[in-house]
Amino acid sequence: MTTNLTLVKMITDRWQGAVKSCDELLHALSDEQLEKEIALGKNRGIYLLGHLIAVHDDMLPLLDMGKKVYPELNKPFIELPDKAATELPSVKTLRQLWEEQKADLKQRFDGINPEDWFQRHTAVSESDFMNEPHRNKLNIILTRTTHLTYHTGQLRLLK
Amino acid sequence: MTTNLTLVKMITDRWQGAVKSCDELLHALSDEQLEKEIALGKNRGIYLLGHLIAVHDDMLPLLDMGKKVYPELNKPFIELPDKAATELPSVKTLRQLWEEQKADLKQRFDGINPEDWFQRHTAVSESDFMNEPHRNKLNIILTRTTHLTYHTGQLRLLK
Repeated sequence: MTTNLTLVKMITDRWQGAVKSCDELLHALSDEQLEKEIALGKNRGIYLLGHLIAVHDDMLPLLDMGKKVYPELNKPFIELPDKAATELPSVKTLRQLWEEQKADLKQRFDGINPEDWFQRHTAVSESDFMNEPHRNKLNIILTRTTHLTYHTGQLRLLK
Repeated sequence: MTTNLTLVKMITDRWQGAVKSCDELLHALSDEQLEKEIALGKNRGIYLLGHLIAVHDDMLPLLDMGKKVYPELNKPFIELPDKAATELPSVKTLRQLWEEQKADLKQRFDGINPEDWFQRHTAVSESDFMNEPHRNKLNIILTRTTHLTYHTGQLRLLK
């Protein structure tokens, strides 16, 4: 029997690996590059960076870890498409939030008891969870990992 | 204790979901769109499609499921960068291989016993696996899932 610890490691390692890849890419890109569109007429780097921070922030309530830290990012980076918000934080500010969040999430995730990862997340009801035990907290990390790599592939085009 | 069945479902569902998203996107793109670069001076859609098929094919030996089915794709789509191979299969041919492979991998993966997913993959030695039980077959699917979403994010720009 594989222990839950192994499975938690598989998925949290993949999350951390995806964060590290995106982080290294962000460090390799200048603020000017991040202001550009990833392809003609598509989202700008700054939008994708804000979008990632906002989506990762949204994991906190889903994981029952309290409220979002940056609720003000929801409207410009999730509700609205790129170039629709009248004002956006600067690339410098977003870089700072990314760093803060990276450290904060790592600390929070490292502190979760392996068994607790397999508890239901807050968007699934107790009764649904009885029949769908895969809709657990660890699955939130898994789906956000693929979301992160999807957009990292796009940010990569700015290099 | 969470059963292995739940853990396998979490990861294989995410793989199938990523395949489905990419598949729907491929159906929404014309052959002409796939011939185009995803961004100015970057890889073409046809290259990424061939690359995904070649990388997914490479899972077979890693999962101890025999030899690759399309070894001829290795050189033009993994070893060489885009536009370096003198001849490439047509988009139509690659679409056909993608469909074949999609059905074949689904059948193979559905047939794996849940416990067997937690056996070591062929690129890790028995002794290393003793200390690193996360380097199992299921982890191959996990890393290929994030690889797939990375490139799907890029292919999406062709729309």
